[in-house]
Amino acid sequence: MTGSLLTLNAGSSSIKVALFDAAGDGDAALPAARWSGQADGLGAGLKARLRVRDADGQALHDAPLEGAQASHQGALAALLDWHAKQSGGGRIAAVGHRIVHGGADFVASVRIDAGVLDALAKLEPLAPLHQPHNLAGVRAAMAAFDGVPQVACFDTAFHAVQPEVNRRFALPRALHDAGVRRYGFHGLSYESIVAQFARIAPELAQRRVIVAHLGNGASMCAIAQGRSVATTMTFSPLDGLTMGTRCGQLDAAVVLYLMRSRGMSADEVEALLFRQSGLLGISGVSSDMRVLEASAEPAAAEAIGHFAEQVVRHMGSLAAALRGVDAIVFTGGIGENGAALRERILEDCEWLGVNVDAAANRSGAARLTTAESPVSAWVLRTDEEAVIARHTARVLRAAG
Amino acid sequence: MTGSLLTLNAGSSSIKVALFDAAGDGDAALPAARWSGQADGLGAGLKARLRVRDADGQALHDAPLEGAQASHQGALAALLDWHAKQSGGGRIAAVGHRIVHGGADFVASVRIDAGVLDALAKLEPLAPLHQPHNLAGVRAAMAAFDGVPQVACFDTAFHAVQPEVNRRFALPRALHDAGVRRYGFHGLSYESIVAQFARIAPELAQRRVIVAHLGNGASMCAIAQGRSVATTMTFSPLDGLTMGTRCGQLDAAVVLYLMRSRGMSADEVEALLFRQSGLLGISGVSSDMRVLEASAEPAAAEAIGHFAEQVVRHMGSLAAALRGVDAIVFTGGIGENGAALRERILEDCEWLGVNVDAAANRSGAARLTTAESPVSAWVLRTDEEAVIARHTARVLRAAG
Repeated sequence: MTGSLLTLNAGSSSIKVALFDAAGDGDAALPAARWSGQADGLGAGLKARLRVRDADGQALHDAPLEGAQASHQGALAALLDWHAKQSGGGRIAAVGHRIVHGGADFVASVRIDAGVLDALAKLEPLAPLHQPHNLAGVRAAMAAFDGVPQVACFDTAFHAVQPEVNRRFALPRALHDAGVRRYGFHGLSYESIVAQFARIAPELAQRRVIVAHLGNGASMCAIAQGRSVATTMTFSPLDGLTMGTRCGQLDAAVVLYLMRSRGMSADEVEALLFRQSGLLGISGVSSDMRVLEASAEPAAAEAIGHFAEQVVRHMGSLAAALRGVDAIVFTGGIGENGAALRERILEDCEWLGVNVDAAANRSGAARLTTAESPVSAWVLRTDEEAVIARHTARVLRAAG
Repeated sequence: MTGSLLTLNAGSSSIKVALFDAAGDGDAALPAARWSGQADGLGAGLKARLRVRDADGQALHDAPLEGAQASHQGALAALLDWHAKQSGGGRIAAVGHRIVHGGADFVASVRIDAGVLDALAKLEPLAPLHQPHNLAGVRAAMAAFDGVPQVACFDTAFHAVQPEVNRRFALPRALHDAGVRRYGFHGLSYESIVAQFARIAPELAQRRVIVAHLGNGASMCAIAQGRSVATTMTFSPLDGLTMGTRCGQLDAAVVLYLMRSRGMSADEVEALLFRQSGLLGISGVSSDMRVLEASAEPAAAEAIGHFAEQVVRHMGSLAAALRGVDAIVFTGGIGENGAALRERILEDCEWLGVNVDAAANRSGAARLTTAESPVSAWVLRTDEEAVIARHTARVLRAAG
């Protein structure tokens, strides 16, 4: 295969794009992007901006997006325009997409045709904040790259190997068989951590590991021998941990109560649980952990405490799923950058055998615990784009 | 105070009644019932029966209930008729009631007047399977004992001392303040276990204890120094563990999905989650653990496995809430009688420091673990009636 692979991760107000060499694959190391670009603030009323960095994180491009450029399709066009002007821009051999929800049928990455796109659109009700944007990205790329293979890489697929008991709600079997089950998300991120951890701590990576992907969306995953055993997000990206604007674990009877006793519609309840809850709902201040940490409001501290306590509680639950834990890995925006929060969480996991090394945790070291700590803790930078590139290359190669 | 105290626990198809001496209270020991009666199978199409036993469990009365007797009020009248014919039947000084939901306002037992009854009826949407039957029991007792004090004892009240972080969903503050919060249930059972455990293992009872109340309804509670810290049921009796017909933990987005994509009404979703899920839903065989254990159906074994795994997972989560665990106590119908299930659960908690003594577990001994086990496990018979009697006596005494 010649040319380059483009990866595309389209969210509600942003797109992330990265460029990889199409050659090389199959080894344990993840590929490295030649450049990666991120357009933020897409949508009405926001200040849109496009930034591109090289493999070493050095800025290659940084400019506002205005007018028609301040849309998903416009930002993608601006980025491709920038790319075409670079030396060695070269041919795009394929585009790999992050797709949040693969439902019951898509348990591995797949080349996208009209039938696949149709099936993925049917899953939009399961991830209303994400799936429509992911698919808009697919359509934009199809328009921009006529005839170039498009590959869907699913956040759910990593979890398809979980034991049946962890995939099942205690609902009638017919509903499970019809797809109302625990899927799990952030699988591309978990796969990137598994690959990285296998290189820096190969023995530990074969044992019982809990990965905490803490960002605006947040989940945790119990992993044994590199394979998913259990995770905190279930049917949709709503369940599990307290998130930026999502409520996480909630008694399902609350939904019935809000609709019947408070007259809320399903749309209103969805907006409440997905967009007005979480850190924002508890604090009344912000959904952004950095803003909360800088706030003097008691409710901001309470929101941070709620977030941390849910991580600690789920650490216990996931350790139970693994019948013990050997290593903990933090990743995601909050996991990678929130040293104070990591320290707080790890101190509250001392009962599991975690002895935090506070100096190491604040120094930027990968290992966060003392040399004697029975359970070690780590921080690694997630790289979903590299996993998308790896999957995309494999799908194309398998197709011959 | 002279005369006797009657306790009344009215469920959907049963009532439990017990008679206590009104004198004596204030010490750590729970009072013992002079007799306790249970009417089962109340309601259309069932075979209703009334059984009464003395303090030693010997049968005093056992007869079918027919015609008008096969209702809650009829069964209560039949029981009081039986009582009146006994020597020393005596005067009823007060009636204490188990009330499932006290909401945000009732955090201690209280004498029932018209205003209280009205406020408790407003909480029916929070516990639709239980609260209406509890209140029907109150009304039946008011009719049977004109002018006799009636006291409400709440399953939620034991949990009112929990840390705020464990009482709160990650919802907007206004909803929490309006009562959409984690309450917790089975508090009368937990209080009875705390009192009993303090007598048989006084030092351990002051440490970190997880109580698993496993019955047709099931929850678990993390208790430190005798006080509730966290529990698995939250806003309603739906959340947490897999139960006989209730689903336990569920992504709240499933409710929205069922209503929007499958056209179900709120009533249909409620019936599904409260009455058609849990062990019954997974197995398709029965909601009764004894029936499942005797079944050869693979789906029955799967349902038992789901139940056990959820107990193990929540054990980890509650141990995290306590930052470690010193003792585990089983109670409730399944917890008290399911030796095989207890052994399976305890084996899967070995990672927490539990070394089960299989022979002791099957022998009927209170202690289920080896002498060297770092975490001990126990089985105790719950006695909600004794806690209701204790609270009822205290409320009357406080009222002077």
